[in-house]
This record gives sequence, C-alpha cells and structure tokens, in this order.
Amino acid sequence: MTTTIEVVRAAPGLAEYLADVEDLLDRSVAGHGGLVAEIGAEALTAGGKRLRPMLTYLSAPVGTRPPVEAGAAVELVHMATLVHDDLIDGARVRRGRAAAWTAYGADAARAAGDYLFARAFSELAARGDVGGVATLADASLALARGEALQRSQRYDPDTTVEGYLERCALKTGKLFEAACVLGGGSGDYGRLLGVSFQIVDDILDCAGDTLQTGKIPGTDLRDGTPTLPLLLAAREDEVVRAAIAGGPLEGVLVRVAASGALERSREIAGGFVVRAKESLGDVPARPELEALADAVVDRNT
Amino acid sequence: MTTTIEVVRAAPGLAEYLADVEDLLDRSVAGHGGLVAEIGAEALTAGGKRLRPMLTYLSAPVGTRPPVEAGAAVELVHMATLVHDDLIDGARVRRGRAAAWTAYGADAARAAGDYLFARAFSELAARGDVGGVATLADASLALARGEALQRSQRYDPDTTVEGYLERCALKTGKLFEAACVLGGGSGDYGRLLGVSFQIVDDILDCAGDTLQTGKIPGTDLRDGTPTLPLLLAAREDEVVRAAIAGGPLEGVLVRVAASGALERSREIAGGFVVRAKESLGDVPARPELEALADAVVDRNT
Repeated sequence: MTTTIEVVRAAPGLAEYLADVEDLLDRSVAGHGGLVAEIGAEALTAGGKRLRPMLTYLSAPVGTRPPVEAGAAVELVHMATLVHDDLIDGARVRRGRAAAWTAYGADAARAAGDYLFARAFSELAARGDVGGVATLADASLALARGEALQRSQRYDPDTTVEGYLERCALKTGKLFEAACVLGGGSGDYGRLLGVSFQIVDDILDCAGDTLQTGKIPGTDLRDGTPTLPLLLAAREDEVVRAAIAGGPLEGVLVRVAASGALERSREIAGGFVVRAKESLGDVPARPELEALADAVVDRNT
Repeated sequence: MTTTIEVVRAAPGLAEYLADVEDLLDRSVAGHGGLVAEIGAEALTAGGKRLRPMLTYLSAPVGTRPPVEAGAAVELVHMATLVHDDLIDGARVRRGRAAAWTAYGADAARAAGDYLFARAFSELAARGDVGGVATLADASLALARGEALQRSQRYDPDTTVEGYLERCALKTGKLFEAACVLGGGSGDYGRLLGVSFQIVDDILDCAGDTLQTGKIPGTDLRDGTPTLPLLLAAREDEVVRAAIAGGPLEGVLVRVAASGALERSREIAGGFVVRAKESLGDVPARPELEALADAVVDRNT
C-alpha cells in the first residue's frame, strides 16, 4: 500500500493543491476562534486523509486545476457529517480523543456542524459554481437516503447484497462522486470507488483493531447494521444470522473471520475497484487514480 | 393581536409571495418522497407562521419583489434547525405530534436536516445570489455561537441581562436579520425584532400552557437556561436564584409570575420593538412591518 499511495501523492501539483485546500479549511473553520475553531480543529484532524479533495484534484481534465473551493467544499460536507455523527452516536471518543463538543454541549456542536455545512455551500457559491452547489446538495440528499435505508435494513439478516450495495452508494459513493464531478471529472469512478471504500470500511469493522482505525471493531454488529461480511457469513452460519437479528454477539466476529466472508468481501470490493478503473477516460491523472483505487481496497486502516 | 396581524396579512402581494414560497418549499422538501418528505412535512407544519419569509417580502425596497428563493432559503434554514433541535432534545413530541424521524432513526433525521440546510444554500445559489449565501452562512455561524453562549450561561444566575440579550441576538436575531437583508432591506429591524421575539418566547416558556405553544412550560428552567424573566426574578428572590443554579424547581414559576418579572420582561421586549420600528427607513411596507413588530410582542403563542 505504501508504494501505491506514494504514486498518488507524487501527482504533479497535488501537494500544493491540498495545501491550498488546507488553508481554505483553516480560514473557514479554525479562523473563528471559540466553538467553531475547537470543534472544527477536531474535525480537521479526524478527516485525516483528505481523500475527497484529492479526488477532486485528480479528476481534473487536461490543462485544468479545480478551484480550491471545490475541494474544500466537499471536505467541509464530510467534516460536518463527522461532527453530526459524533453527536448522534454520543460517540465521545474519536481516534482516542474526547469529542471537542462535550465542552460546548450538544446544541452548540449541532449548530457548529450546521455551520460547516453552510460554509461548504458558501465556498462554492462564492465562485458562482451553481452546478457544483446542486451536485453537493444532491449528495447530501443521498446521505440522508442512505441513512434511512440503513435504518430499514437494521437487524434484518435477509438484507440483499444489492440492498447493501445501494446503501454504500448512497452513504459513501455519492459524495465521492460529487468530489470527482466538482473537479470536472466523471462521477462513475468516484461512485464505484466509494462503494469499494465502504465495503473495506465494513470489513475493517469486523477485523480491525481500535488503535489502527480509531473505532472499536464490531460496531456494525452491535448496531444491528448488516454489512457485506456479516451478510455473506450469515448465509452459511445460523449463529451469525441470529446475531444480525439481535441475538447473542459473543464469538460472532471469530465465526465471520473463519467463514471466509472477509476474503469474499475483499474480492467484491476489488471488483468495484476494477470497474472504477475501467470507467476512467483519458484523464491526465489516470495512473494516480488507478493507484488510489488500489490503495483504497488494500488499506488496513 | 388579531387586528395587527391582519394588517400584516393584508399587505399587497404578501399572500401570493407566501404561496410561492410554500410551493418552492414543497418542491424542495415534500417532492422527494420517503424520508425527506415525511420529516420535511413535519418541519413544514412546525414552522407554522412563515414569519421569516414574511420579513423577507415586507423588507423589499420600493418597486421590488424579493426572489421566492430568498424567502424559502431562510425558512429552510429555520426548518433544518427545528429538525436538528428535535433530534438533540430527543424531543419526541412537537406540537402534540410524534416527531417523524422516530420512524427513520436519528441518523436519517440528522442527515435529512443536513439536506434541508443544503437546499437552503442551493436555492440561493441557483439564483446566483452569492451575497445572500454569505449572509445565510453568517447567520448559521451566529446560531452556533448563540448555542455555545447558552451553554456557558447554563445554571449561572449571574448571567447579565446584556449577556442574555447577546444570546438572543445570536440565536434568533441574526436569522431574522438575514431574512430582512435577503429581501433587500435593512438588517437592524430584523435583529431587534428577533431579540424581542426571543424575549417573548422566553416569557411564554414561564407562563404559557402546553396546548397553546406546543411546548411544556418551564423547559428553560428545567434546562438551567437563564432567561430574562428568570434573571429579573432572581435579583429579588433567592429561591428563583437557587433554581437557576440547579436547585429545587417546585413552585418557582409561580414566584417568577408573582415577582412582576414577566411584565418587566414584556416592557424590555417592547423597548426592542420600539427600536425595531424606529430603525425602519422609508420601506414601502413600513405600516405592515410596524404592525408585525406589535404582533410579535403582543402574542400569546
């Protein structure tokens, strides 16, 4: 993975673009002092990889550089959802740090997340990018629909793989797609990459450890969220099936690992990566986008 | 109050403008089916008075009609905060109805609120109204700061009246101000009106009954939120003072009423209404804006 991600990072101009995005995020978020700066600082850190602005930059057609506002806007939407997720989960620990909002209270954190949302659209609008605003609003609607779909699939071991993949496309794929479209590229690559990214996330939730991912493994299982590895394992193991439906969880992740469902899930994620790569046209950063897709599916964190 | 609000409603073109806003809100919200439509339908109802789009329309300079998108955008931000408030409060009953989001889960409702936010900015951006987007983003920041300030004032009976009024300006005044600015008018009227609106809300929380306001009275006291009537009463009554600080609440609202603090709070609210009216220039709808200000301070719900 180190080598493939290094190919991506070496893309001409990428480091400068990401530095510009970071500056704009700082101005949008950290420059306010007080509440927004503190909650924003945490979200700035938690966002970490800046995968979405990276997609925006690398998607640019030949001879163009996407506006910094485009990369920042998509990252701001991502950050806003992180802040709101933390709130709803009551997840007071993200990547080992207490959530900043505990000092300000839930109402303030909710409003700070709302503000990050507002800034995302504000940055794009300031460039007069009306199409970009519509793209990002559509992605926000998809996020909402994805959460509603997830709710309807909760505790349901009969969730189909197609239903699961639709949820991944809504929850993760559409914002990746928006990142690419805002860069002037094609959305198909982003959507397919987002689906494989989500599958790998769900595999790591079955297998990863807290130190690497900042998440306690098995959160999906405890929430009754049927993910791909859980659904595949449940086809052959009544205990896993019962656990998805709300039954005892003891030892279930060991059974999932033993069933081979993690490897089969990786294969399915790999299939989406292949399709993502195939969907790329003659975009100049094609080698980097291909390497990024490989890195997404090979990652361990 | 009936007569003053009837003066407002009779403003030429207002009913048509509000009907157009309603159509746009319907398209933005209810037209999606499923989650957003259902959560949106509740927020559409809960929003009720459409006070903010009314302000947008009435603020228009002579010979102009504000874009429908402006009135809808400010109402969408208001609706988004209602959805998120419900979530954070865990308030499952608003105006006697179960919150729609209980069917979809908190994550979905949070995301639906995010989407309403996105639509607000999207509507303005679609008109190319970059300044309007910035105004609305600033108001969103003020909402966040107001919530943070409220948190810092919680359980503090030494909160100053100035500190309380600053909170009102941030939490309520800035969005009223934005409504007026988006209509092409002056923000001062909106901000001052918003402060008096919030004071009256806080009076009603001490005095109102559940049927009229849809809120159980005394929520501020139970939350330890020091409002104007509570602070004024606490100056002369140690029991009220102790209650703000987290002490026993039994009988405290009766003491607040007996102290005359409700009347003094109405007088202060009335002072803001006077200042709001004085800040009006030669806007054509001046009589209606004056009547609206009177109606805000005279209302019982």
